[in-house]
Amino acid sequence: MINSDIAQQIKIVLVDTSHPGNIGAAARALKTMGLARLALVTPQVYPSAEATARASGADDVLAQAEVFETLEEAIADCRLVLGTSARLRSLKWPQLNPRESADRVLAEVGQGRIAIVFGRERVGLTNEELALCHYLVNIPSNPDYSSLNLAAAVQILCYELSMQSGGAEPSHSEELGALPVDQDEMERLYGHFESALIELDFLDPDNPKHLMRRLRRLFNRVRPTQNEVNILRGILTAAQRCCRVAGK
Amino acid sequence: MINSDIAQQIKIVLVDTSHPGNIGAAARALKTMGLARLALVTPQVYPSAEATARASGADDVLAQAEVFETLEEAIADCRLVLGTSARLRSLKWPQLNPRESADRVLAEVGQGRIAIVFGRERVGLTNEELALCHYLVNIPSNPDYSSLNLAAAVQILCYELSMQSGGAEPSHSEELGALPVDQDEMERLYGHFESALIELDFLDPDNPKHLMRRLRRLFNRVRPTQNEVNILRGILTAAQRCCRVAGK
Repeated sequence: MINSDIAQQIKIVLVDTSHPGNIGAAARALKTMGLARLALVTPQVYPSAEATARASGADDVLAQAEVFETLEEAIADCRLVLGTSARLRSLKWPQLNPRESADRVLAEVGQGRIAIVFGRERVGLTNEELALCHYLVNIPSNPDYSSLNLAAAVQILCYELSMQSGGAEPSHSEELGALPVDQDEMERLYGHFESALIELDFLDPDNPKHLMRRLRRLFNRVRPTQNEVNILRGILTAAQRCCRVAGK
Repeated sequence: MINSDIAQQIKIVLVDTSHPGNIGAAARALKTMGLARLALVTPQVYPSAEATARASGADDVLAQAEVFETLEEAIADCRLVLGTSARLRSLKWPQLNPRESADRVLAEVGQGRIAIVFGRERVGLTNEELALCHYLVNIPSNPDYSSLNLAAAVQILCYELSMQSGGAEPSHSEELGALPVDQDEMERLYGHFESALIELDFLDPDNPKHLMRRLRRLFNRVRPTQNEVNILRGILTAAQRCCRVAGK
């Protein structure tokens, strides 16, 4: 089982869940594996008697679940974000299976909060939501029938966290000494990129999101430190200053 | 995923299930992982619309499920029988976790049929039923709350069978698809950064190398693809254009 200090750092986030029963079943899945933090982004029916019934003794996890209006808010305090995805996406994001995901989470859990995000029952996470994640988690499944139940997917990830935490020593050492910044800071960086690229006439007005998604992919992968974010934003500010002098 | 020849040799047996929803959810769990053989021993409510609803597309597995009057009959054609147990029993039986169970099953699957048996929702298997098994399977869980949902337990075992059978496609833990550019291209990127940052008045003239070293550290870490290098250089070019218009 996961020890409770580690468990406090790991948040399971369910986005836009349709069926309250799945929320309850997910709470139960967390608790059986020693996890405790559940976050709900715009659950369609919640609170709900069905959720409580399916939680079946994990109602404390359900009662403490935090509810958010947006995924951005739910993960704002997280340093590492994993997003589950049933399909391989055209979006080329680094991809992990559940075991590798658990190893990654346990390797980084000493450095700050971590979120594992699960999408809607039928359609999963949108590309925009996945773009907020550092890694995609794919549960290997039957190519002819990959329709895992939401709570079953949560169960598998929580199970792997529990199994892998049995052996894996939580390591605090990334390659670099400094910690990567949290998601709030990353959002400020992307916001700065977007406004600077507009001033530079560099965003395609017909498809501004395309370039931003690529930049997110690039910088989510690098996971910059505060110092590095400061350098990047300094460059953007210098470019904006030039643009303003140029009267653009 | 488990290949279909192997899948045909592995039978998931549910004993005396109370909730038909769990039978449907178990069918779904099997099918997502490539398994197909479900056996039901005296299910309390079956067939049932709720089972079909929860099977959600795995109704073929449900339709082919065999129903038995006793566990002995259900496992009569099996050479290896594993019985799941939430609690440690006074019964001293050889015990495996789900991963070890999957390895054991896969090691012996060439020799004949294998059953993995799951007990009642509340009380599991009786000692008499466990005595029919060669191994006990215990899913490590929270000692204060080990109440795994039946279908969730089935999901974990089927998942481990799939993972251990090599069904985990070698996952591309690195940036997939496109290769990182070579060092020549990286040098051109850094050269472009340096000249643009000079135009932007952003390099410290007393110590220009310091910033460049930090940028190298950042972008060497990310190992950008050609496409990403093109985006970064495009941004630098746009900034330089502004600077030139500004007459700097």
